[in-house]
Amino acid sequence: MENLKQQVGIEAARYVTDGMRVGLGTGSTAAFFVEELARRVREEKLNITAVTTSTVTTAQAESLGIKISDLSELEGELDLTVDGADEFDSALNGIKGGGGALLMEKIVASLSKDYIWIVDESKEVAQLGKFPLPVEVVQFGAENLFRKFEASGYLPTWRMTMSDDNDNGRFITDQGHFIIDLHLQKIENAEALALKLDQTVGVVEHGLFINMAKHVIVAGKDGIKTITK
Amino acid sequence: MENLKQQVGIEAARYVTDGMRVGLGTGSTAAFFVEELARRVREEKLNITAVTTSTVTTAQAESLGIKISDLSELEGELDLTVDGADEFDSALNGIKGGGGALLMEKIVASLSKDYIWIVDESKEVAQLGKFPLPVEVVQFGAENLFRKFEASGYLPTWRMTMSDDNDNGRFITDQGHFIIDLHLQKIENAEALALKLDQTVGVVEHGLFINMAKHVIVAGKDGIKTITK
Repeated sequence: MENLKQQVGIEAARYVTDGMRVGLGTGSTAAFFVEELARRVREEKLNITAVTTSTVTTAQAESLGIKISDLSELEGELDLTVDGADEFDSALNGIKGGGGALLMEKIVASLSKDYIWIVDESKEVAQLGKFPLPVEVVQFGAENLFRKFEASGYLPTWRMTMSDDNDNGRFITDQGHFIIDLHLQKIENAEALALKLDQTVGVVEHGLFINMAKHVIVAGKDGIKTITK
Repeated sequence: MENLKQQVGIEAARYVTDGMRVGLGTGSTAAFFVEELARRVREEKLNITAVTTSTVTTAQAESLGIKISDLSELEGELDLTVDGADEFDSALNGIKGGGGALLMEKIVASLSKDYIWIVDESKEVAQLGKFPLPVEVVQFGAENLFRKFEASGYLPTWRMTMSDDNDNGRFITDQGHFIIDLHLQKIENAEALALKLDQTVGVVEHGLFINMAKHVIVAGKDGIKTITK
């Protein structure tokens, strides 16, 4: 599995050319992309402007010698963002946020001309929803929202942290919110659910990425394939 | 004007009966409601459960002897929330957030069976939009969103704080976000704009309150009128 993740990470780094402005995704697969990009920057003297999707990715990129620029100073769009995904379907819609960085990932993706997901073949599904759908919510009123999700049959659980120094042991995102995971199993209409969550007061963002990815690079036992929308 | 605000504050407090669970709004008009409610709690021994829409209102209510309950412990809905509004139209849609508490106000309103606005007659408009529309946004990527709003012709400005100890002098909400005010002058289709902002990545919430208020109590030079939806 690690080898498959590395293969797509390396493949995606080929999309980066000199002078590009690049968004760096978060997670175990995106980390291989960052690693390969760092190698190219170092060995090929590639000149890029990089922005991050999490504090974790910032730390990794900087440790490898990639300077992270402030997103706020970016005028216009990024050329390309490369990130992982937890599930994707044939329409290239997907679920992201297993790593807890969905909000920053979606913000960076929304500012990118080109947006690529890199995955191993286990992430390809006929229907989204087996992977729990993360919903990032404002702390105030979060319990009430949790109960609303329960009443809607969404089977919510709190995202917890491994460390004990957070409030209630709940995971707190880089932007200061909680995450509620919805164990839906099957999402019949991803666009309709995305719209409903967008309109729910207290929801900051959700892990449904609809009509965002332009390409998905998939690694499997038979090699690498690239699906383009 | 202060007298008109006080009149509607007192009138709205009449809607509160013993045992109710009540949401307390924020702002100069809502403050008169809180004051009158505190008087009734004290003098009539009214027993209520109160939740807040801002740290400012919590401080006021507690100073007057109203105990504020934790919203998270509320099972089910509030009976009633009373709040001010910056503008409202004949459909009882409105703009809120001049005081910077729109997110918490909307969360509390969304949990209330009955929701009342108290205003002076200057807040009644034929078309929404003269009052700047506040949009609460995630700090990460906020400059990029600001430039998108500029490009859309929304004439955005940053909400600033009077004190100097905040980042860039920008106002930071109780939930840790920035506010961008949109100087639209005229909102042709408030529902469509609300939907568009709901779907904009990086927007946490906006000041358009559509189909939320059930009654508006208006004070004018000819007395008090109550408009019910």
